[in-house]
Amino acid sequence: MYSKELEAMLQKKGIIPGDEIRITTRKKTYEGILIPRPEFGDKNALVLKLKSGYNIGIRLRIGDKVEKKGSKRETFTLPKAELKKTLGLPKVTVIATGGTIGSSIDYTTGGVTSLVSQEELLYQIPELNGIAQFEMLNLEKRMSEDFIYKDWQELARHVARALSGSHGVVITHGTDTLHYTSAALSFMLHGLTGPVVVTGSQRSPDRGSSDAFMNFICASNFAAKAEVAEGGVCMHANSSDSSCSFIRGTKVRKMHTTRRDAFRPVNTRPIARVGADGSIEYTGEYKKSWEQRIKLKVMPGYEPKVALVKFYPNCDPDIIEYYISKRYRGIIIEGTGMGHVPVKPREENYSWVRYIKRAVDAGVVVGMTSQCLNGRVNSNVYTNLRLVSRAGAIYCEDMLPEVALIKLGWLLGNYRRTEAATLLDKNIVGEITQRSEIDWFP
Amino acid sequence: MYSKELEAMLQKKGIIPGDEIRITTRKKTYEGILIPRPEFGDKNALVLKLKSGYNIGIRLRIGDKVEKKGSKRETFTLPKAELKKTLGLPKVTVIATGGTIGSSIDYTTGGVTSLVSQEELLYQIPELNGIAQFEMLNLEKRMSEDFIYKDWQELARHVARALSGSHGVVITHGTDTLHYTSAALSFMLHGLTGPVVVTGSQRSPDRGSSDAFMNFICASNFAAKAEVAEGGVCMHANSSDSSCSFIRGTKVRKMHTTRRDAFRPVNTRPIARVGADGSIEYTGEYKKSWEQRIKLKVMPGYEPKVALVKFYPNCDPDIIEYYISKRYRGIIIEGTGMGHVPVKPREENYSWVRYIKRAVDAGVVVGMTSQCLNGRVNSNVYTNLRLVSRAGAIYCEDMLPEVALIKLGWLLGNYRRTEAATLLDKNIVGEITQRSEIDWFP
Repeated sequence: MYSKELEAMLQKKGIIPGDEIRITTRKKTYEGILIPRPEFGDKNALVLKLKSGYNIGIRLRIGDKVEKKGSKRETFTLPKAELKKTLGLPKVTVIATGGTIGSSIDYTTGGVTSLVSQEELLYQIPELNGIAQFEMLNLEKRMSEDFIYKDWQELARHVARALSGSHGVVITHGTDTLHYTSAALSFMLHGLTGPVVVTGSQRSPDRGSSDAFMNFICASNFAAKAEVAEGGVCMHANSSDSSCSFIRGTKVRKMHTTRRDAFRPVNTRPIARVGADGSIEYTGEYKKSWEQRIKLKVMPGYEPKVALVKFYPNCDPDIIEYYISKRYRGIIIEGTGMGHVPVKPREENYSWVRYIKRAVDAGVVVGMTSQCLNGRVNSNVYTNLRLVSRAGAIYCEDMLPEVALIKLGWLLGNYRRTEAATLLDKNIVGEITQRSEIDWFP
Repeated sequence: MYSKELEAMLQKKGIIPGDEIRITTRKKTYEGILIPRPEFGDKNALVLKLKSGYNIGIRLRIGDKVEKKGSKRETFTLPKAELKKTLGLPKVTVIATGGTIGSSIDYTTGGVTSLVSQEELLYQIPELNGIAQFEMLNLEKRMSEDFIYKDWQELARHVARALSGSHGVVITHGTDTLHYTSAALSFMLHGLTGPVVVTGSQRSPDRGSSDAFMNFICASNFAAKAEVAEGGVCMHANSSDSSCSFIRGTKVRKMHTTRRDAFRPVNTRPIARVGADGSIEYTGEYKKSWEQRIKLKVMPGYEPKVALVKFYPNCDPDIIEYYISKRYRGIIIEGTGMGHVPVKPREENYSWVRYIKRAVDAGVVVGMTSQCLNGRVNSNVYTNLRLVSRAGAIYCEDMLPEVALIKLGWLLGNYRRTEAATLLDKNIVGEITQRSEIDWFP
């Protein structure tokens, strides 16, 4: 909210966000598009988007004038520049899928929408000319919460095609389900010849604090230079603008709604620290491109009838029955601690063991993970765990629940049921580590 | 696994874990109960539980003798000591509910079971004599994964009764759902006169690395001395044995399956650091006991027909329909990012908005939280979020999904539906903070 006085003045002049206005102070005149007020900050200030693309906050004083110039209310677009192709530089294909990194504020509603084409972001970054020769592929723009498995399949096929002509691939993606997509790509693509780098931004490119530019520069540098034959996520490593982390695609999770360093490795350390200056420092183990023994292969099969069930106290196990009746082929349970669900609760109908057994008997593959996220499930420590395991639940080691879900969908889409069950707790693409790096717990 | 040679010898002599054995080495003779072999470590060593209660690992060399003395196979119990009541010290009631902190290894199965009475742990800690006069209340032992809301209700009533005669209360509890219980108690108890401290242990008391003793000492110190009129969790603050954190009961979560410092504050800092030396250093805001304006009151109502639904890509929104048909009264959705579910996915049947609207129209209270856990949901930033919010989902600010679930169950158990819906996103007992402490992100 603005101050009462400012609010009244804007209302009187019929000025709303998106309007082109002129502010005349004692010292200077400013012209630009009025931007919706940030949640916090000076109640007597207006924020303008100047022609240069920059935002400026202007604190009004008595006597300052505000006039409406025109009614723009259109989406702000970044000015176009040119992206040169410097011969000799490695080739990188950018696949744009939408999300905040390819978005701008829609000044009609004040909300962020994904409208701008990805090229416009690239044109804003002169540094890119020295990193690689870029090829652009614009897929249909989609906010990441709207992604389904068919989008992963399509993306996997595009990545494979792109890798035939490029050293690496950068995928720009909304952050909400970015880690689900990175995990899906890791399972769907085998025999990679170079890095597949998924990146995005937590703050839209037209904000001063946007992480879009640095994330894109780091992702491009990694895709151009790294001899890593894995898929992963490249996002801010901390709250400063000094470096990004490249984290294995199956060991990463969005752990904060808004922070730029929201993406964190779980049960492992990042594969590399990617400096804003172009440096790459390897901090973990990874598969090298020259060690690949198989040809690049896409295994896009996916069974969407897999469910993730998060357990909580009083959770009626009838939910398992529901998925059996809906002919689901796999269920990943997010249990408590080392993989618990109730065995002897005070009321019989909250006991989960026999429902799990019924699902397994009906041919459903049931996997157990932990809602702690960090650490490993283990069916040997407590008697109750053994009972759950004996009922047929497969304990998924130190896999994230979300990754176990995608792995199971992928397994059931490519293998027979018994094989899928056998492979669920075996490492395939780095999703399970033999010993978790317990010290890499924040 | 032991080495082949050691395995063969044990088998030949019919020795299994739980047997009382004698080991004669060149230097010394050891007698004790054979403990199941730890997962890692020397393959030629046996671990004995000595009469003193300590465990010892003995590496066997050629010529060493191992004999079976007897077949104990019974639960090891700690030797009894006496707990003095020093007049003048504050009174603390200990309510024991089970879990690892009140458990020992069952040498018949090798698994951890909750069998030992909580007094036995207290007797092992001479420091306690100088902290408080303890009253013991042993409830039926229950592993924490087996807890249901009736256990919370019973516990709340016991706590209220105990507070009438004690300065504070310590509750020993299994760690798996400890934070669900601490949240439930926070909502069920109002007008507290002193601290209600839930504690537990990640490693059983008969292990050298057990956190049971320090957690219990710190919890007791806090319950005896602190002028805090809130419920919270007191567990290891880091991986050393120097201090515990006291964290508000509605802002805490088990974030690791096995680490002793698994319990972490989310979107806030701990209320206090409790030193192993008895010191208390306040690090956050809290309600002081002398500021209470209402009398101690139990509001134990709870509606178990509330569900927590974690969203993931491809998740069929028919799950909402299922809960409507089962006559659920509340649903908390764990959305992605700032509280997203699909609005325009590639396939229409994955769109969640109209299912949420249908639930709300059917009288179900629907709340939105984030699977990021850290940070805040916000229905204003993206257009898709507004659509979900317009369908009737209540955005639960920076509340943890698990806490929002328990709050909604509690609200629907004590208030009419419209009141419950109104209160869901308003702070009641510290479960919502006006501004999240963004820097307290690990």
